[in-house]
Amino acid sequence: MDNWLPTLITPTPTEGYDLAVKLSRMAIKKTQPDAAIRDRLRPEYAEDADALIAVSAVVATHFATIAAANNHWRDAT
Amino acid sequence: MDNWLPTLITPTPTEGYDLAVKLSRMAIKKTQPDAAIRDRLRPEYAEDADALIAVSAVVATHFATIAAANNHWRDAT
Amino acid sequence: MDNWLPTLITPTPTEGYDLAVKLSRMAIKKTQPDAAIRDRLRPEYAEDADALIAVSAVVATHFATIAAANNHWRDAT
Amino acid sequence: MDNWLPTLITPTPTEGYDLAVKLSRMAIKKTQPDAAIRDRLRPEYAEDADALIAVSAVVATHFATIAAANNHWRDAT
Amino acid sequence: MDNWLPTLITPTPTEGYDLAVKLSRMAIKKTQPDAAIRDRLRPEYAEDADALIAVSAVVATHFATIAAANNHWRDAT
Amino acid sequence: MDNWLPTLITPTPTEGYDLAVKLSRMAIKKTQPDAAIRDRLRPEYAEDADALIAVSAVVATHFATIAAANNHWRDAT
Repeated sequence: MDNWLPTLITPTPTEGYDLAVKLSRMAIKKTQPDAAIRDRLRPEYAEDADALIAVSAVVATHFATIAAANNHWRDAT
Repeated sequence: MDNWLPTLITPTPTEGYDLAVKLSRMAIKKTQPDAAIRDRLRPEYAEDADALIAVSAVVATHFATIAAANNHWRDAT
Repeated sequence: MDNWLPTLITPTPTEGYDLAVKLSRMAIKKTQPDAAIRDRLRPEYAEDADALIAVSAVVATHFATIAAANNHWRDAT
Repeated sequence: MDNWLPTLITPTPTEGYDLAVKLSRMAIKKTQPDAAIRDRLRPEYAEDADALIAVSAVVATHFATIAAANNHWRDAT
Repeated sequence: MDNWLPTLITPTPTEGYDLAVKLSRMAIKKTQPDAAIRDRLRPEYAEDADALIAVSAVVATHFATIAAANNHWRDAT
Repeated sequence: MDNWLPTLITPTPTEGYDLAVKLSRMAIKKTQPDAAIRDRLRPEYAEDADALIAVSAVVATHFATIAAANNHWRDAT
């Protein structure tokens, strides 16, 4: 696999959040490498409130990591 | 998408908490971009105790990140 | 909304814990602003072991944040 | 309520772990103050694998906080 | 109870991980002290994917604590 | 068991993420050592959206630990 995650540094919190979303999806990709199956599962969880909240929890954990990596973007404010 | 999250810095913990709520919702928006579907799901989880507690857990994780970014607002007290 | 959370600083861990409970409930209030619905949900989760444990998890996350804000009350011991 | 949590400092990790268990239970007590109901719920979750694992997760979060408060008991080793 | 957790320090991450597994199990033991009931529950969760993943989450939280205690074993590399 | 985790240090975040995936799986292996049972469980969770999200949550917690160990790979950028 290519070097898909060269750095945790992002210019803004907005881009840091997008990276957190990306990280949350990558674990699913690595656990279920078959794109066809993932495509079949997607509508199932994208229309289920509990699953969406669970996704949001994973994003929150990754965002904490990315925010720490970026020193919470304090210098950018 | 616009720069919806320019900073994690807030004047008070109260506003930091509101930002945490916003961050918890944004992941849902990014996973389910269709506003009509989200509107349909909303009453479903807003009247379900388990879902509300799960939302609260996500807010707690984001609030930890925002509190750290603001040095826990120690200088504001 | 008023400035309901002016500070994360508390004199003792006991009061810090109470604040964590308050923070865990506030997210539910902000997601379900209708007090009548919340009152209806309350007995449902207050008598359900799984829901009570889930609430406890949220309190634990908030308590970690508040403890860090208070430098773990080390100077108070 | 009395000052049931005067400090997070414990002499050993063993006692820190016990304190984490205590903290995990206190949130349940504060959410369901009726001892009779809690007693009725107890066998329900104490014999349910999923509930026991969920309790263990809460303990883990509190133990992290207590360990940090005690500087991970590094000086005690 | 004896001093079963005298320290969080381990020589290697491998042993730190084993300690995290031990910590995750201890909360279950303390919540359900009856070994016969625990033995009866074990096959139930050891053959259930959701329960195994939930156990893994608890181990991850404890491993974070133990890694921090050991300064992430940086000096050992 | 061999020293399967000699270090948490990785050259890049990409490899750190792979290590997080490995750590998340190891707890399952240690809780259910029978490879035949694990193989039987795998399709069950690899095709279940909720289970995949739960796995992703565990990976996120481990990735936070590994990122901290590597000083968030700040020197590598």
